[in-house]
Amino acid sequence: MIDKANFRLKRAGENLVIAIAQHYETKEVLMVAFMNEEALRRTLETGKMHYFSTSRRKLWLKGETSKHYQVVKEVRIDCDGDALLFLVDPLGSACHEGYNSCFFRRLEDGELKIFKEKEFDPERVYK
Amino acid sequence: MIDKANFRLKRAGENLVIAIAQHYETKEVLMVAFMNEEALRRTLETGKMHYFSTSRRKLWLKGETSKHYQVVKEVRIDCDGDALLFLVDPLGSACHEGYNSCFFRRLEDGELKIFKEKEFDPERVYK
Repeated sequence: MIDKANFRLKRAGENLVIAIAQHYETKEVLMVAFMNEEALRRTLETGKMHYFSTSRRKLWLKGETSKHYQVVKEVRIDCDGDALLFLVDPLGSACHEGYNSCFFRRLEDGELKIFKEKEFDPERVYK
Repeated sequence: MIDKANFRLKRAGENLVIAIAQHYETKEVLMVAFMNEEALRRTLETGKMHYFSTSRRKLWLKGETSKHYQVVKEVRIDCDGDALLFLVDPLGSACHEGYNSCFFRRLEDGELKIFKEKEFDPERVYK
């Protein structure tokens, strides 16, 4: 699997693939981020989503602070290997802003509107 | 909308956002690619998905050759604005290899397996 991934995106000194997390039951797209080879290896080994944070320049276990882990149910790869799709069981909310998905705003009549309810208070979770 | 997008990915001399196409009914993730500002503007103006091809370094109307256009039904943006999620009605298949989705391979017992049927013959569509 790891040898089939095409880490062709270069950011923050790392070679990366795009990693999309999709809810395995509702099929909602929860978030999209990046993985380097180590993040992908740890994700496959542990069954929990690990990303590479390009802003913090480090490996990032999703849920390490919030406990909102994402448990991997299925792994798919796209035709050119530079994007992976993970069907996950999210133990909590994907978004650090308190929503189940990072895609909590949509275009309505030319304006971006929040169309979701907050599931938690970020101030309480990320002190 | 365009002013809220964060074109922070730099590739092929362009500033880009990640663009995910998801089937508006089945919720299947069809493909992921990039958009520059012009691709996003044309997508919003025409209601058909336009991407920026980083390999061909040009604007790309999805379906310009295959006629497999993707008609936009809803547009979402993520918390930091560098990824857009488009719910689309695909007029045909997303993948140039003939499958409805570019994610036609998944991990099974440590091996990547094709789990979808081809919908068209690429040789006939892309001469």
